[in-house]
Amino acid sequence: MATWKDPQIAGVRALLASRQADPNGPQPSLAERRAAMDAVGEMGSLPTHCFHEPATVGGVKCERVSPEGALPGRTILYLHGGGYTQGSPRSHPPMVARIAEAARAQAVVADYRLGPEHRFPAAVDDAVAVYRALLASGVEAGKLIVAGDSAGGGLAMALALALKAAELAQPAGYFVISPWADLTQSGASYRTKADTDPSITKAGLDQMAQAYLGGLDPRDPLASPVFGDFEGVAPVLIQTGSEETLLSDSVTLADVLAHARVEVRLEVWPEMIHVFHAWGAVLNAARRAIRLAGIWMDERYA
Amino acid sequence: MATWKDPQIAGVRALLASRQADPNGPQPSLAERRAAMDAVGEMGSLPTHCFHEPATVGGVKCERVSPEGALPGRTILYLHGGGYTQGSPRSHPPMVARIAEAARAQAVVADYRLGPEHRFPAAVDDAVAVYRALLASGVEAGKLIVAGDSAGGGLAMALALALKAAELAQPAGYFVISPWADLTQSGASYRTKADTDPSITKAGLDQMAQAYLGGLDPRDPLASPVFGDFEGVAPVLIQTGSEETLLSDSVTLADVLAHARVEVRLEVWPEMIHVFHAWGAVLNAARRAIRLAGIWMDERYA
Repeated sequence: MATWKDPQIAGVRALLASRQADPNGPQPSLAERRAAMDAVGEMGSLPTHCFHEPATVGGVKCERVSPEGALPGRTILYLHGGGYTQGSPRSHPPMVARIAEAARAQAVVADYRLGPEHRFPAAVDDAVAVYRALLASGVEAGKLIVAGDSAGGGLAMALALALKAAELAQPAGYFVISPWADLTQSGASYRTKADTDPSITKAGLDQMAQAYLGGLDPRDPLASPVFGDFEGVAPVLIQTGSEETLLSDSVTLADVLAHARVEVRLEVWPEMIHVFHAWGAVLNAARRAIRLAGIWMDERYA
Repeated sequence: MATWKDPQIAGVRALLASRQADPNGPQPSLAERRAAMDAVGEMGSLPTHCFHEPATVGGVKCERVSPEGALPGRTILYLHGGGYTQGSPRSHPPMVARIAEAARAQAVVADYRLGPEHRFPAAVDDAVAVYRALLASGVEAGKLIVAGDSAGGGLAMALALALKAAELAQPAGYFVISPWADLTQSGASYRTKADTDPSITKAGLDQMAQAYLGGLDPRDPLASPVFGDFEGVAPVLIQTGSEETLLSDSVTLADVLAHARVEVRLEVWPEMIHVFHAWGAVLNAARRAIRLAGIWMDERYA
């Protein structure tokens, strides 16, 4: 087992370990897991001057996050993580607020439909609907960035393919954190990082993929974007932790994008874990990563 | 065949095509190829206030490049490309000068020994000798960045492994451009990018690998760093073009570094070709890439 040089990530690991459910005891239900994930969103501290309000965009429930200092017209369409079965705008507010602040943009967090109640491609349809509605409401594509973490990162890349297929204008860029981009779960890191990933397991991913796909083909590019043809989509920034079960998804995605001549930047953050950005309150690395992503988004908007 | 959106890279391609030797005519000798590569260095324009002078460092011939505005102590050890058989400090001055200027550092360009006269690991030994001598002369490891392009990028990564093995202090970072990091030539891009790479062919790489290795094992990590264990080495920035025969070398290197918990950033520049940075006089993308690398190096030095 590795030893960690960064005392902050060691602290996060200790906290995560203390929260593990007894593997031999009763397992939490989906409803309990959803509630627990939303509760995580209450943990972090929100920036003082950042306002959250509900909105309906393209028929999809959303939350609008408006940090002070956002420049007019600049928008982030944010797609939250949670394995396509959990998560909501309530589970991610501090992280999304920090990202929006760093990009000097307003964020619209989509409360897209989840499995198993709504299987693939309901989530993709909702993401497209919100994107279309944002354009229709007057947001310029060049002032729109699509961002997301984990399943939301995969969904952002699926949206890129859907926009291309529908011949809609591409946004200014895609910023994806620890994307889950291959629902066939075939990456080498599923094995090589199994021991050091404190939160994501192949078994858990299998379960979520099944709930999302409901028997449909995981090789569909809108479910597993690594099988898609990205030629012509907007630039992509990928940030991921070195200790992720999903590390290979990021590397494979970068490879696929590169082959398709998409401007891509892959950043791997040593010792960091799945969506480490969510730990901004305790991890300097989370704040540094968001700051760098902010600079990148700022340049894309320009 | 792809069409190119960037008119500047289309111009570079036209120039390269006009220079192709007739494949049915007599082929240039190694001496002629070396002279031609050195002559390329004369093409680009040097920054006005940047001085070049010969130096011997650690017993290795070098060239010292001193841009105006370099901050005291900041040094780049630069390892030029040329397939371990060609290239010299004369072949790369405008590019190295621009890189040094962007990092506000002095550069020391090593004229390391080449194959086939001096086979592997002569080049690695020379790189280590220069690095050691720079430390001995008072350069702080934290003020030293190792950079290189193509074979020099591979050599920079080999140096990282050699420094680790010798328990020498790591530099502040490694900046590698279009690295040749796998002399077994096994990457997918050797096939997928064969048609769009205007300068590098698998046949040419095979020939150079043979001249460098002289029958030794290409799987030696000091020859093909993708087989190395990088845990503990300094952060790495990789910049590469999407149209490279060597694209997979960059992606695989990023993957290997990421698995080993090295801070790594991979940037793939769409439509760009092998070591596009050398075309700074005509390519905006070359200047943008060097500017971004400069910001990265500036942060590493800090």
